[in-house]
Amino acid sequence: MTGSVSRAELTPLGFLRRSAELFPDRVAIVHGERRTTYAEFARRVRALASALRERGVEPGDRVAVLAPNTPALLEASFAIPAAGAVLVALNVRLAAGEVATIVGDAGARVVLADHALCELLEDVDADVVRVDDTGADDDPYEQLVAAGTPDDVRLAVDDEDALFALNYTSGTTGKPKGAMYTHRGAYLQGLGDVVEFGLGYDTTYLWVLPMFHCNGWGFPWAVTAVAGRHVCLRRPDPGAIWDALDAERITHYCCAPTVQIGVVGHDGAHELEQPVRVALGGAPPTPALIARSEKLGFHPTHLYGLTETYGPHTVCVWQPEWDELDREEQAHRRARQGQVLMAPDEIRVVADDGSDVPRDGETLGEVVMRGNGVMTGYFEDAERTKEAFRDGWYHSGDIAVWHPDGYIELRDRAKDVIISGGENISTIEVEGVLSDHPAVVEAAVVAAPHERWGERPLAYVVLRREGEADAEDLIAFCRERLAHFKCPDEVVFGELPKTSTGKVRKDVLRERAASAD
Amino acid sequence: MTGSVSRAELTPLGFLRRSAELFPDRVAIVHGERRTTYAEFARRVRALASALRERGVEPGDRVAVLAPNTPALLEASFAIPAAGAVLVALNVRLAAGEVATIVGDAGARVVLADHALCELLEDVDADVVRVDDTGADDDPYEQLVAAGTPDDVRLAVDDEDALFALNYTSGTTGKPKGAMYTHRGAYLQGLGDVVEFGLGYDTTYLWVLPMFHCNGWGFPWAVTAVAGRHVCLRRPDPGAIWDALDAERITHYCCAPTVQIGVVGHDGAHELEQPVRVALGGAPPTPALIARSEKLGFHPTHLYGLTETYGPHTVCVWQPEWDELDREEQAHRRARQGQVLMAPDEIRVVADDGSDVPRDGETLGEVVMRGNGVMTGYFEDAERTKEAFRDGWYHSGDIAVWHPDGYIELRDRAKDVIISGGENISTIEVEGVLSDHPAVVEAAVVAAPHERWGERPLAYVVLRREGEADAEDLIAFCRERLAHFKCPDEVVFGELPKTSTGKVRKDVLRERAASAD
Repeated sequence: MTGSVSRAELTPLGFLRRSAELFPDRVAIVHGERRTTYAEFARRVRALASALRERGVEPGDRVAVLAPNTPALLEASFAIPAAGAVLVALNVRLAAGEVATIVGDAGARVVLADHALCELLEDVDADVVRVDDTGADDDPYEQLVAAGTPDDVRLAVDDEDALFALNYTSGTTGKPKGAMYTHRGAYLQGLGDVVEFGLGYDTTYLWVLPMFHCNGWGFPWAVTAVAGRHVCLRRPDPGAIWDALDAERITHYCCAPTVQIGVVGHDGAHELEQPVRVALGGAPPTPALIARSEKLGFHPTHLYGLTETYGPHTVCVWQPEWDELDREEQAHRRARQGQVLMAPDEIRVVADDGSDVPRDGETLGEVVMRGNGVMTGYFEDAERTKEAFRDGWYHSGDIAVWHPDGYIELRDRAKDVIISGGENISTIEVEGVLSDHPAVVEAAVVAAPHERWGERPLAYVVLRREGEADAEDLIAFCRERLAHFKCPDEVVFGELPKTSTGKVRKDVLRERAASAD
Repeated sequence: MTGSVSRAELTPLGFLRRSAELFPDRVAIVHGERRTTYAEFARRVRALASALRERGVEPGDRVAVLAPNTPALLEASFAIPAAGAVLVALNVRLAAGEVATIVGDAGARVVLADHALCELLEDVDADVVRVDDTGADDDPYEQLVAAGTPDDVRLAVDDEDALFALNYTSGTTGKPKGAMYTHRGAYLQGLGDVVEFGLGYDTTYLWVLPMFHCNGWGFPWAVTAVAGRHVCLRRPDPGAIWDALDAERITHYCCAPTVQIGVVGHDGAHELEQPVRVALGGAPPTPALIARSEKLGFHPTHLYGLTETYGPHTVCVWQPEWDELDREEQAHRRARQGQVLMAPDEIRVVADDGSDVPRDGETLGEVVMRGNGVMTGYFEDAERTKEAFRDGWYHSGDIAVWHPDGYIELRDRAKDVIISGGENISTIEVEGVLSDHPAVVEAAVVAAPHERWGERPLAYVVLRREGEADAEDLIAFCRERLAHFKCPDEVVFGELPKTSTGKVRKDVLRERAASAD
């Protein structure tokens, strides 16, 4: 037995147990034509956990999964912790060498790998189980599930502080870092998502955000907590998203702004029949994107967090008095990162000496967090953990201002700030202005080396249609809206390089800017 | 500082801190014409906590409050734990001797007492602060708040397992028992209420259920967690409830079925303009009451729990397939106690040997619980704690069946079961049938001693209008619907004696039945 009379160890596994008891016959997972009920979902999770144990997985061992948003990944996200092991969901857009590095760092014994991705595991020394994603008897993954004995596994944990998952940061330099999540942290993150996004027994959630990204920001647990319906999607491209929105009566999804740009700009975009709540995070959405989303009937919420904070750690909660603002100013407010998602966690913006910056909406400082929604450290990396946790707070490396109403607003990654003639320029601020231009789909601003000023802003821009605006137009547009020293000197047109999670790779753009000089 | 980088101690105090940061200018408390914003609510709570400390309250000390549903009681419900002390909310309908016993058992140093109730404290040896409930400068309570230094108090706790409150059971015999609640338990109970009842930033909650009853089933924390509006009510009589429903756009309230009987039967009852969710608990609502409530636009949810379980521990969640049932059968389903409210807590129905009873909807067993929603024991009463916690589960003393769908349905308090000729008769089952009769408002069935059968059921009934039915009619009505041995032999008409929380005092009726014999 787990816990005592007056204590149950907090774990997302409890959500699955309760929902399977309460709504055994309800559809839990939709994947194309396949439907899995909650009773079956729980049974398969327990069977898979049992089968992993029989395959030699010991308590505390790491088990990796390399898969798009499929039932196998969702099931494994519960089954691996149910087996007492640690979930390592791998980014599917990594190169084979990167996958090998992470699997090696995590020391994963077993890897479940989608058939389309097996070639990424060439360099990996582990027991690989292929997932054909067919649900058929000859699918090796199905054979593994069938080998398990569900009755041997309870959906519970002996210690809520036990390791639940490792999530590797998509940092562009240095050894990958595995952020450690606990059962307790994942449980509370899931509840925070439920409360903040108003999930309920009638929720149908579309899996646009990759489940490998901070464990899908906690939504595997949140949706399961309310016995909601998980709609899987192998490839979250805009056409597939619109098909699902129309066919499955979706109520909620999450994604990065760059994905939402594709959704609202798709040829098949149309006004929604029922409101859909969209949680946008991973990068600040531009006011223009928010305004376009609302026009179609989406209810966008902007949230912010990092791999180190289980994904979302703040949310930009709508204030009733914002109803009185004009649409553009509303969109600007909604682009703020906001306040902490879940009590009693805390977030602050601090100066170099660790004191709060004034809440003036102007002074730049670093965003620091603490609480149940912060990782317990980097896996087997005491040194970098100590550095990140100095002064008793997790240091995000993100630069923000603190508004008088307590909302934080990101100005940059510490490394992205442009310092021009001793003045700080927030690249996000400049990007926001560029995105307000009607011809612009997306913009990224980076520092270009400059002999006189040290650095100057250089803009990379994607246009709606080629030739719809030129560099001169855009620079003039900026100069009407920003201090002149903040405006880009030069604009380059063309596609933007991105990470697997949709973040613009500013490191690549900075290199281009430096070599072009 | 509290907690560590990766841990915040769970406490309802965090909900108030966050809501005051997020919505400082929003109305938190309504009391007649008085309005208190969230910023002011938090400031007053911190001031009161500071003032209590200065008055000599030490960490771990108990502080009692004797008040109806007023802002003072709501503020004290946060301020006493914020001072590091333990909240003891006293039942306002107790006699002076009972109050003295409980204050003595708790060892409360300070008592905050509403002006209308001060006379109950004649026999109490404690530092009493009178609450005039005026909000005026000459109110001794306001003077206490004014004496505090809010900046000296943080809305946080050093240990989530610390004692938060004592709630005394309204048991009718023996020494009162103080059920111990922790900060962690109260936090999770509050979140369970939020998730299950769909509370959100637009919630307006009417304080019908006494806040002294299991700390208002966790709703002080739940409503505050979503920055909802607390509407106070000194006397929750049906007329005042209807006035508030009409004037304040109420979205949610909680109460005992007997209160709801008064609401739906009130002269001013009318169809609601907007749906109001009503959580009914404390006794099983009859199907007739649920049907009448729905007709007016209430959305009743039935929940079940005890003082020992922070109030609600199960909820009767609506199953979509029940939509197909006729209205009466729907109401019967909704009268079940249901499944556990909050994962990962557990509830079972067990036989004498501690094994699960079959899930057949027929076999009687005792309801047992465990988890974060169970008290940590009775205050300074190791013996009765041990007895209640035997076999690693809290033994409720309630008798139920377990349905095939996992829902439990109460049949009786262990001491209320009628044993007639060796057969168990559930008094709740017989009461449910009687309440289905159109002339009946409320019914209570108890055992009357019987020479031949040992015990026989005797019914006490309140009629809608005097003379609308007689004993013969009602007995015949039962015999058409129940096994004949379960039907009452005799019916007595007239008002029912009740406890302060609206439960029928079956002990009184049993005495009457015994003495009438």
